[in-house]
Amino acid sequence: MYKCSKQRMEDKIKTMSKYGDAGHGGVTRYTLSQEDLQARDEFVKRMKVIGAEIKTDDMANMYATIKGSSPNLPGIVMASHCDSVRNGGNYDGILGVMSAMEALETIADEKIPHKHNITAMIWTNEEGSLYPPAMMSSGVICYDYLPENIRKNFKHENMLLSKSVLDKTVTFGEMLDKNKYKGDKKNRLNPKEYSAMFELHIEQGPILEAAGNDIGVVTCVLGMVNYRIRAFGQSDHAGTTPMKYRKDALYAAALAIQQLHNELDKLAPDLVYTTGEILCHPNVHTVIPDMVEFSLDARHEDPKVIEGVVKAIKNLPEELAKCRIESEVAWTRDTVYFNKKLVGYVQEAVDELGYKNQKINSGAGHDAQFASYMMPTTMIFVPSKDGHSHCEEEFTSLEQCVKGAEVLLNAVLNLDRN
Amino acid sequence: MYKCSKQRMEDKIKTMSKYGDAGHGGVTRYTLSQEDLQARDEFVKRMKVIGAEIKTDDMANMYATIKGSSPNLPGIVMASHCDSVRNGGNYDGILGVMSAMEALETIADEKIPHKHNITAMIWTNEEGSLYPPAMMSSGVICYDYLPENIRKNFKHENMLLSKSVLDKTVTFGEMLDKNKYKGDKKNRLNPKEYSAMFELHIEQGPILEAAGNDIGVVTCVLGMVNYRIRAFGQSDHAGTTPMKYRKDALYAAALAIQQLHNELDKLAPDLVYTTGEILCHPNVHTVIPDMVEFSLDARHEDPKVIEGVVKAIKNLPEELAKCRIESEVAWTRDTVYFNKKLVGYVQEAVDELGYKNQKINSGAGHDAQFASYMMPTTMIFVPSKDGHSHCEEEFTSLEQCVKGAEVLLNAVLNLDRN
Repeated sequence: MYKCSKQRMEDKIKTMSKYGDAGHGGVTRYTLSQEDLQARDEFVKRMKVIGAEIKTDDMANMYATIKGSSPNLPGIVMASHCDSVRNGGNYDGILGVMSAMEALETIADEKIPHKHNITAMIWTNEEGSLYPPAMMSSGVICYDYLPENIRKNFKHENMLLSKSVLDKTVTFGEMLDKNKYKGDKKNRLNPKEYSAMFELHIEQGPILEAAGNDIGVVTCVLGMVNYRIRAFGQSDHAGTTPMKYRKDALYAAALAIQQLHNELDKLAPDLVYTTGEILCHPNVHTVIPDMVEFSLDARHEDPKVIEGVVKAIKNLPEELAKCRIESEVAWTRDTVYFNKKLVGYVQEAVDELGYKNQKINSGAGHDAQFASYMMPTTMIFVPSKDGHSHCEEEFTSLEQCVKGAEVLLNAVLNLDRN
Repeated sequence: MYKCSKQRMEDKIKTMSKYGDAGHGGVTRYTLSQEDLQARDEFVKRMKVIGAEIKTDDMANMYATIKGSSPNLPGIVMASHCDSVRNGGNYDGILGVMSAMEALETIADEKIPHKHNITAMIWTNEEGSLYPPAMMSSGVICYDYLPENIRKNFKHENMLLSKSVLDKTVTFGEMLDKNKYKGDKKNRLNPKEYSAMFELHIEQGPILEAAGNDIGVVTCVLGMVNYRIRAFGQSDHAGTTPMKYRKDALYAAALAIQQLHNELDKLAPDLVYTTGEILCHPNVHTVIPDMVEFSLDARHEDPKVIEGVVKAIKNLPEELAKCRIESEVAWTRDTVYFNKKLVGYVQEAVDELGYKNQKINSGAGHDAQFASYMMPTTMIFVPSKDGHSHCEEEFTSLEQCVKGAEVLLNAVLNLDRN
C-alpha cells in the first residue's frame, strides 16, 4: 500500500493552473491551443525527469510510459484530458492527468517493482468546446467515428461569439496538422499493447461531498439522450404586428421548455435533464423570431426512464402558440458498465487505504466510456466542492486530490500483481 | 391632381430588388455594403436623367433636388432608406425612396410647375442591422446622438454569426470613411434650406389590408420602451448535477417570458410587445446556463399603458427558479405626433385621388420620427400583404405602390401651392 507526495501534487496543481489562467480563478484551455501546449510541455518535461518514454499518435494523444520488469506484457494505462471548457476550472480532466503523473512519479521515486509497462496518457479534445464532438479522440480510436470526417469539423458556431477565437476559424484537422505533438497512427491506444485503462476524474456533482466521502468507486456511465427541439414561427415587425396575428417562435420555445420541465419532473427523482443551448433567428429585438432551437440533454441509468423522456418529447404538441414544434434526436448512449474486475481492484485499494468511499455512477461522459468498448476500463471519482464543475468555482481539496492519486496508484499495482 | 407611371414604378421595383437579392425572393442589403452602393448608384443614375442636382452629406445621406420657380424658398423633402435587415424584403424603406424618385420623375416628365425645390432623399443606416442603433443618421442629424460616438459603433454581436460579415469587423465610422458617397457636413438636412419632410413607407402590419384600404394617413409614431431582462444562475455540469441543486438561468428566463406575456396581455388589446432577442451563456448543451438575457420591446400610443408595461417588468420576482432576475431600460420614446398641416395635405391628396384610406399610427420607428423634432414632418403608409415585414415574404402590389407614390406627389404639390 503506497502513498503519494502531497507537496509534489500541490506543485503540479499550481503549475498547470497557470496554463490558460483566465484571471479569476479558472482556466480557458481549448484543445491544441497555446495554453494546451504549455500543459503538454509540462507533462513531457516532468515525465522525462522520471525516465518515461514519450510517444504521441495521429490525434496528438500523448503517452508517457515507464517500463515494467516484463515489458512484453500488455501495459496498463492511466488517462484523462488537459483541455477545458470556456472559463472552466482547474480540476476537470487535468486532475486525472496529474494523478497519473503522480502515480508514475511515486513508482519511480520509491522504485516500486511492477511487471507491466505503466503509462500516463493525455486524450486530445475531450471537451469538444471548440471542435465538437466531445470525447473526440477516444471516439475516433475506440469507437466508431470516422477520423477523416472529424478532421473536417469546424468550430462550434457559438464559439464565433468568443472574440478570442474569432481570428482562427480553422478546422480541427488544420489545428492538428500544425501541432508539434501530432504523431504516428501506429502509436494509438490498442488492445494488443495495452490491457486496461484507469481514469481518475472529479465527480462534477455534489453527491460525494453530501455523503462526506473522499472517493467514488465508479460502476457505470449513465445512459443519455440528446435532442434538438425547434419552434417555427413567422418573422414580423415588433412594432406593427398585433398580438393576435403573431407566430412568436421564442414564446413557443419558452412554453415548450416549461412543459418539458413539468413532464420530466414526474419521471424519476434522480433523472437529470438540461436545456443548455438556445439559438434564435434572426435574434433582433425589433423582429418577432421565426425559428428557435434548443437542446435537451437527459441522463439516467435505467433505459425505461430514458424511454419516458423520449415519450415526453414526442408528446409535445405539434403546435404551440401557433408555431410548429419539431424534435430531432442528436445522439444517444446506453448505460456503459465498467469492467467488474477493475472496479474490484479500485474498491480493494480504497479499502486498504481506509478512505471514506461509496459506489457511484457517472452522469458525465468521459473518454473511459469509449475506451471501455475496446479494453477493460474503469474510473475513480474525487469530490467537487458544492458540486460545481465546468465553471471557475470548480474545487477539490489537495488532500482529496492526493487520496485520489493514491487509490489510482494502488489499484494499478493491484492489477499489476494479478 | 397628378398620376404616376405604373410601368416606370414597376421597372424601379424590379431593378432595386436585384441589389442584395438573397436568392429566395428577398434582399440582404446592409447599409454602406456593395449591395447598398448598387442601389445608391441606381438612384443617382435615374435622378441625373431628370436633371436633378445630387448632394451627399457626412453621414452619406443622399439628396437629389430639382429646382423650383422660387429656388430660394426652403425646399420640400421626400425621404426614406435603402438598407434592409438580414433576409429582408423588397419594399421596407426602398419603396419610400422609389416613390420619391417616381414623384420627381413625374414632375419632370409632365413639367409640373412648382415654386419650391423638391428633393428625393436617402437616409443612411435606418435599420441599424449591422451597426446599431436603428435610424442612426436621422438620430445624428435631427436628434441628440453624438456622431463621434456613433462612428465608433461596432457590428451587432449577433451579426458575428453571419458568416458573410465575419471578415469585415470594422466600425461604422470606418465603413463611412471608405464610402464614395460620404460628403460634406454642410449638406445635411436642416430647417433653413428645407421646410418639410414626407416619408412614404409600407405599413409593416396587417391593419390596412384587413380594412381593405390602400392608403394609411399616418398621425403618430407610437411611444415605446425597450428593456433588457437578465437571469443569473449557476453553471454546472448537465450530467452530474441533481435537479434540486440547480440554478438554471434559461429555465428562469422561460418562466419570466411567460409571466410577462400573462401580465402584458391584460393591459390593452392594441399593446404590442416582443421578446425578439435572447443570449445564453455559455450556451453549450452539456452545461447549465448561468446567464440568460432577453429583450422586451413594447409599444402603445398611451403613456399610461407603457407605464403599465414598466410596472409589469418591475413586478417580476427578484428570484425565479432560484435565479436572480434583473431588468434594465435600454431606451424609451414618447409618442411622436406628426405635423397637423402636413397630415391635412396628405388627407386632401388621397381624398382627391379617391383611394380607400384611413388614419393610422406607426408602431415602427422611422427616420420621419426624428426628422419631426427638426421640421414639419409626416408619413404615408401603403399595405403590407399578410402584414409581413422584415422578412422575404414582404409584399405590396404594384397598384398599391403607384397609388402611394401618387398620394406622396400630390401631397407635396398641395404644400407647394400653400
